[in-house]
Amino acid sequence: MGFKVDLNCDIGESFGRYRLAEQKEILKYVTSANIACGFHAGDPSVMRETVKLAIENQVKIGAHPGLPDLNGFGRREMKITPQEAYDMVVYQIGALQGFLSVYNESMQHVKPHGALYNMAAKDALLAEAIAQAVYDVSPELVLFGLSGSELVKAGEKLGLVTAHEVFADRTYQTDGTLTSRSQSDALITDQEKSVTQVIKMVTEGKVTSQQNTEVSLKADTVCIHGDGEHALAFAKYIKETLERNDIAVSSIST
Amino acid sequence: MGFKVDLNCDIGESFGRYRLAEQKEILKYVTSANIACGFHAGDPSVMRETVKLAIENQVKIGAHPGLPDLNGFGRREMKITPQEAYDMVVYQIGALQGFLSVYNESMQHVKPHGALYNMAAKDALLAEAIAQAVYDVSPELVLFGLSGSELVKAGEKLGLVTAHEVFADRTYQTDGTLTSRSQSDALITDQEKSVTQVIKMVTEGKVTSQQNTEVSLKADTVCIHGDGEHALAFAKYIKETLERNDIAVSSIST
Amino acid sequence: MGFKVDLNCDIGESFGRYRLAEQKEILKYVTSANIACGFHAGDPSVMRETVKLAIENQVKIGAHPGLPDLNGFGRREMKITPQEAYDMVVYQIGALQGFLSVYNESMQHVKPHGALYNMAAKDALLAEAIAQAVYDVSPELVLFGLSGSELVKAGEKLGLVTAHEVFADRTYQTDGTLTSRSQSDALITDQEKSVTQVIKMVTEGKVTSQQNTEVSLKADTVCIHGDGEHALAFAKYIKETLERNDIAVSSIST
Amino acid sequence: MGFKVDLNCDIGESFGRYRLAEQKEILKYVTSANIACGFHAGDPSVMRETVKLAIENQVKIGAHPGLPDLNGFGRREMKITPQEAYDMVVYQIGALQGFLSVYNESMQHVKPHGALYNMAAKDALLAEAIAQAVYDVSPELVLFGLSGSELVKAGEKLGLVTAHEVFADRTYQTDGTLTSRSQSDALITDQEKSVTQVIKMVTEGKVTSQQNTEVSLKADTVCIHGDGEHALAFAKYIKETLERNDIAVSSIST
Repeated sequence: MGFKVDLNCDIGESFGRYRLAEQKEILKYVTSANIACGFHAGDPSVMRETVKLAIENQVKIGAHPGLPDLNGFGRREMKITPQEAYDMVVYQIGALQGFLSVYNESMQHVKPHGALYNMAAKDALLAEAIAQAVYDVSPELVLFGLSGSELVKAGEKLGLVTAHEVFADRTYQTDGTLTSRSQSDALITDQEKSVTQVIKMVTEGKVTSQQNTEVSLKADTVCIHGDGEHALAFAKYIKETLERNDIAVSSIST
Repeated sequence: MGFKVDLNCDIGESFGRYRLAEQKEILKYVTSANIACGFHAGDPSVMRETVKLAIENQVKIGAHPGLPDLNGFGRREMKITPQEAYDMVVYQIGALQGFLSVYNESMQHVKPHGALYNMAAKDALLAEAIAQAVYDVSPELVLFGLSGSELVKAGEKLGLVTAHEVFADRTYQTDGTLTSRSQSDALITDQEKSVTQVIKMVTEGKVTSQQNTEVSLKADTVCIHGDGEHALAFAKYIKETLERNDIAVSSIST
Repeated sequence: MGFKVDLNCDIGESFGRYRLAEQKEILKYVTSANIACGFHAGDPSVMRETVKLAIENQVKIGAHPGLPDLNGFGRREMKITPQEAYDMVVYQIGALQGFLSVYNESMQHVKPHGALYNMAAKDALLAEAIAQAVYDVSPELVLFGLSGSELVKAGEKLGLVTAHEVFADRTYQTDGTLTSRSQSDALITDQEKSVTQVIKMVTEGKVTSQQNTEVSLKADTVCIHGDGEHALAFAKYIKETLERNDIAVSSIST
Repeated sequence: MGFKVDLNCDIGESFGRYRLAEQKEILKYVTSANIACGFHAGDPSVMRETVKLAIENQVKIGAHPGLPDLNGFGRREMKITPQEAYDMVVYQIGALQGFLSVYNESMQHVKPHGALYNMAAKDALLAEAIAQAVYDVSPELVLFGLSGSELVKAGEKLGLVTAHEVFADRTYQTDGTLTSRSQSDALITDQEKSVTQVIKMVTEGKVTSQQNTEVSLKADTVCIHGDGEHALAFAKYIKETLERNDIAVSSIST
């Protein structure tokens, strides 16, 4: 049996008159779309338009719940309680589900955004609350989280299907965490290196850390950025290269 | 066959540390609860708690979507487009639906709040957009609107079950509209008069206007206020008096 | 004595990660900058940066208060009371004044934004409340409003210095109002025509309406758009053309 | 020379229809009022009313800036940058200053609220940014902060007049910090003990910690709670008891 991997992309992050320079064509190359739900980005009209666009591109749809911090784009950590995390995730999944109902479409997955994603990777109680929220809304939903994180573990404990997420353009440390963005070697800018790293993660379950050690990790889905100049070109490149290397690019739920 | 009527009440309008002096016991006397969805009032945690409370009291649950104006409690008209109304209604129904999924409960109805309710009573395009939103999320939902309003008409045109709403504590004009709150005779403060008006509306389909004319109107559901000093006593009184007059108090969907 | 006119521009309308494609160089050509104050656009950090930029360009600074509707960019009318209008204008002027204090700079003017501007042009009570707010914060402030509007009249009644605002790229009706944007002939796209209209308004106090009548109006300041492709080129063109026609381009307070 | 101390109270924390059960009469007993500025609580209309009330009671007025988190009442820590803290403090001081201008009144002080207060007590960079914001708006402002905190130190370094704040109803640890609210012995509920602690802090500059050690601390101002059942009675009691013990109750700036 061959290898397979999902490519996911954040989208629907405009708000009112504020339009992010999102490459909508990116939906041609990814297999899962994480749609902002109005807390860190997105608004009801943007959500409807984005759901429609994802359906037209036959991309699986997921909720992308964030912290209630539009001004900080959900990137500033907030000390919320697990119960608050639970409640805001249920709310946001539900809101997006409203638009999916309109199109008779079902939701594939949930991937927390920004600071909520990062906090849930390390904080077990927060992770459990978020996983429980997803499970309680529907046990059929797939939970996306950082590969090996507390969030994915919490999801697995509940019996949810999970997707371990890896990054094509980020380097890793010996302990399996991402190199902090404050480090100069945090990003991989060379496209070929990026894809080589992904291929290794998918086919061998390993990544070479910045300390030159081999680190085991699961790679079910790869985060693809939808903004920035080269986003589109890179998305096309990684999809084609993966497929040329006999790695099927397909969504988790198929 | 006997007469029946639904009693509905707005609830879940607290926000964060701000607690409205809601009479939670009111849920013992009403049959439908309209739960705020976070735009004009309510927050994710309040919504979860309120859904739980309604279920415990075996009261049917409805979404109570409002304008995005927390500071004005959704009571200030905003010139939104029909498309914007559609989108914000879908969003808010979905968000509440999230919490209902958690409790494996289904939603009975949707009743717009405040200025959105009033605008949708008169503006046919807005009414159609809101009715369509409700229908598109689920054609099983009941649409609550002012008796005889554009909103109820729009719902009926789409084939939705609708509930014509009347008011126990408001007087009516010859054209069937409510006497404006700016008029000194807008409110009925006498409990007995209130209930007598409701009984007449339910059993005869008529109300005596301030101009002393008999006005036809449908009365499927009566709005009961959950705040204020005498809210609880009045709710108990109206329920008991209706039942003593052989009018069954039961939700629309039963 | 020669003619003079002020050129004003809305600016500082970004919010968090959301950056509007504002042409910052526009500040080289205008003499007054209207800075968003956080209700319809702008945030504290954007406000500080924009104040700094305006000072560096020696452009006079004004507050640009709007309705509390970030999602609608302050463009959707809201039924607020005069007292609410008063309070939100005081608040926003004050907030911007905070940043001016940091730079030991003083505020020149106040120009309401979007729907607040339009409502205040026609609604005398709202206009009076806004003018009073400006006056109460400081009687030295200049009030900008649509030429001939209720807002400017209210300011004059209080003894405020006012600036009658005209538009270079909009056509006018016989009654002196702007042609509604819903009409096909609302906009003037030809640059030369635009400037010719402005020159006539400044030097003759007249504009030729779409009904081909001569309409009297005052033209103290011209609204220049800071976004859009040709914004910068047009700003440069109008400034140079006005000056070539012996119309001094200078701020109201100089 | 006799001893003196300021009594301060948070106020103006209602929002729109949401009214906190604040004891307005508390203004009879305190000498400084910290008015919420719209981020964690308060809105423009509440701010105007509260400023008026404070002036009528001849209480000195201060800004009470908080984190942009109305739902969490500014009590949830957010990872903001020092620059963001600077900007949001300038903004909120300015906004309140707007209402003071209306009444030709000047601002006495600034006291950060909730999580912002707590973070600024420990985080030197955040403390410096906030102190700088206060200084840059006006070096005449008094900076209120937890006694001995980084915030007060940062203010002193800049040459601001500062007020070391102590708590009547909280116990202290050997290191001078407050006993965490998660501890059962965090609160002092006995009124007499409360006031005895304050008298000792003011006259001896010492507090007896829960570890029974004598801890030095400065006590320029005492935080008095304005909500809760016994708030009013306690405020009256502490003021009278302090005065009976020859401690003048007067504001910092007098």
